[in-house]
Amino acid sequence: MQNFTYHNPVNIVFGRGTIPELTRLVPQNAKTLVTYGGGSIKQNGVYEQVMKALAGQQVIEFGGIEPNPRFETLMKAVETARAEQVTFLLAVGGGSVIDGTKFIAAAIPWKHGEEWDILAKRPALSEAVPFGCVLTLPATGSEMNAGSVISREETAEKRVFTDSHVYPVFSILDPETTFSLSERQTANGIVDAFVHVMEQYLTYPVNAPLQDRQAEAILLTLVEEGPKILRDPANYDLRATIMWSATLALNGLIACGVPQDWSTHMIGHELTAFHGIDHARTLAIVLPAMMSYRRASKRAKILQYGERVWNITDGDDEERIVAAIARTKAFFNSLGAPTSLADYGIGSETIDRIGRRIGERGVRLGEHRDIGGAEAVDILRLCL
Amino acid sequence: MQNFTYHNPVNIVFGRGTIPELTRLVPQNAKTLVTYGGGSIKQNGVYEQVMKALAGQQVIEFGGIEPNPRFETLMKAVETARAEQVTFLLAVGGGSVIDGTKFIAAAIPWKHGEEWDILAKRPALSEAVPFGCVLTLPATGSEMNAGSVISREETAEKRVFTDSHVYPVFSILDPETTFSLSERQTANGIVDAFVHVMEQYLTYPVNAPLQDRQAEAILLTLVEEGPKILRDPANYDLRATIMWSATLALNGLIACGVPQDWSTHMIGHELTAFHGIDHARTLAIVLPAMMSYRRASKRAKILQYGERVWNITDGDDEERIVAAIARTKAFFNSLGAPTSLADYGIGSETIDRIGRRIGERGVRLGEHRDIGGAEAVDILRLCL
Repeated sequence: MQNFTYHNPVNIVFGRGTIPELTRLVPQNAKTLVTYGGGSIKQNGVYEQVMKALAGQQVIEFGGIEPNPRFETLMKAVETARAEQVTFLLAVGGGSVIDGTKFIAAAIPWKHGEEWDILAKRPALSEAVPFGCVLTLPATGSEMNAGSVISREETAEKRVFTDSHVYPVFSILDPETTFSLSERQTANGIVDAFVHVMEQYLTYPVNAPLQDRQAEAILLTLVEEGPKILRDPANYDLRATIMWSATLALNGLIACGVPQDWSTHMIGHELTAFHGIDHARTLAIVLPAMMSYRRASKRAKILQYGERVWNITDGDDEERIVAAIARTKAFFNSLGAPTSLADYGIGSETIDRIGRRIGERGVRLGEHRDIGGAEAVDILRLCL
Repeated sequence: MQNFTYHNPVNIVFGRGTIPELTRLVPQNAKTLVTYGGGSIKQNGVYEQVMKALAGQQVIEFGGIEPNPRFETLMKAVETARAEQVTFLLAVGGGSVIDGTKFIAAAIPWKHGEEWDILAKRPALSEAVPFGCVLTLPATGSEMNAGSVISREETAEKRVFTDSHVYPVFSILDPETTFSLSERQTANGIVDAFVHVMEQYLTYPVNAPLQDRQAEAILLTLVEEGPKILRDPANYDLRATIMWSATLALNGLIACGVPQDWSTHMIGHELTAFHGIDHARTLAIVLPAMMSYRRASKRAKILQYGERVWNITDGDDEERIVAAIARTKAFFNSLGAPTSLADYGIGSETIDRIGRRIGERGVRLGEHRDIGGAEAVDILRLCL
């Protein structure tokens, strides 16, 4: 097991009817900027519940944060927050709204030039405006971590930053807010959470059996409960289980003491940046190819995954690896997520562009830092 | 799934060679009271590492906190801390030292009369002196929770308090500090962690499959790795796995959204109070009897436990329940923990005393609040 630190101070308030807790959770005398997305919270009653809980407090709003939230949009919120001298932020929405709000929180007090540098140069922050969340779309885990992914339209870039100053102060998770999600949003959330676990689990053994079993606990839960929810979308317990699974998939716990990969995410981000494909769907395309391409270095963990998650015990190692990859693809397909680039009409031109971009950035991805531009091209060709 | 809140702000610093981190973690300009137990930290080098890390800072010491830490002893530390105007506490030891330090932290600023009331009346605290931990004995989980169990010699009482003000600010977990533990201490820690999980898992189903699998992850890890450590006590990875398992067994996570029992602990505490039996060993006596006595109300979870932890799939329900209890007893026995009162020469006199005391306190224990004095007597008779 590797050394680690784990310090996750987010106050999770989970369950039905918990939005009124905002009255207690938002600091008294705060001037709060409520951030949200395209307006679904105005249809499903969440906006009304939030505003009722904040009645009598100073509240201003910033709506219109898009999926894959854009730097350009968020900077408008930063300007508003600065002009209005906002002291607290409240993100109401899914991972895009929360990620966007983390950037807003970090950018408001930023005094070192261009705010894009927070993403491009990833300096250690010295402060951020405190914020809370009301989660309405389980998927990214952003409600209980300190990471944020932001896109820049101008340059078709998608970048990540992480800083302990952008842990939410609290996150309210009411599974009833997810009843109105579309099948596609629900399915994407399940795929996203699943791949988050795989990025932290499917590397190489480091004698960390507890972390392995914790990761497998989430994978098994998503595999067993995920498909049920598509048939029974207003089942509270299923919604609660998927919501909590997605949070625990990326709150740092299963990463304690083990190597991490994240190359599927990094290549997936490029597919979103160039073609606007839903984040989760890019992962469904890349992960099976990643497993196939790196079957040698990930051998032991792929075999363990196949046995413990899919009950694959027959055949030799190679046959079991092939079966584990096939089951993974079939799981994504059963959730409506295609697993090939052809399904999106994407061909070798995009592959070469992504390869060049990863090559130019000089990054080496994966737990062994052995995935560069050329390897990304090989992997994406397996997705054709 | 039930509603819940989860807010655990403890900063865990885990791994080999992490004690020097104290230099950074203990607040600058603090006046620190270092608390410890019987002096084993002076033999195994931990004391020396701690003092080296704190060199140049204001440090005073309070040693001699005993297993099942006593109110009478701890009040001496409280007096010292008040007289010296201590601003920070550092617990160096196992669960007893940490639990004791939590009480000291709460009692120092207590201004409402007798300090025993913190345990007897369990008021919501308004403050406590901040403290950190260096854990040297994995077992109780106290290093990452806000609970404390204190004994009073004068009245042979053992009481619990929990308050968010007594979360450690940080806890350093260096598995190498546990190499020198005796076989008995190591085994007791494994039993303690195992029963902590069972108290939160073995109740009744509430459609919380993720929490079930998380609990089973810890149980399986303790069952598979625990016995190995007795044969290979200086194996770093085994020590690290047991240490992290014991922490996660009682950091609140697996309790999220599910009912809890704790009747085994409450009855076990009485056995310690009257006879001084090691805490973990009282649990090894009581738990199997508890499972047997409450096999009707715990039926579904005992069957699930038997299947997923012990691979018991043959026989009818009753046979599988009997097998699950037998495997649990055998596991405790394999760790050197006896499972009957006869092994300690305890008979019906003690049983009746415990029954009277639980009856007089008017408490009803367990997830259904159906265990009072009379039921405790029935359960303890099964342990004869």
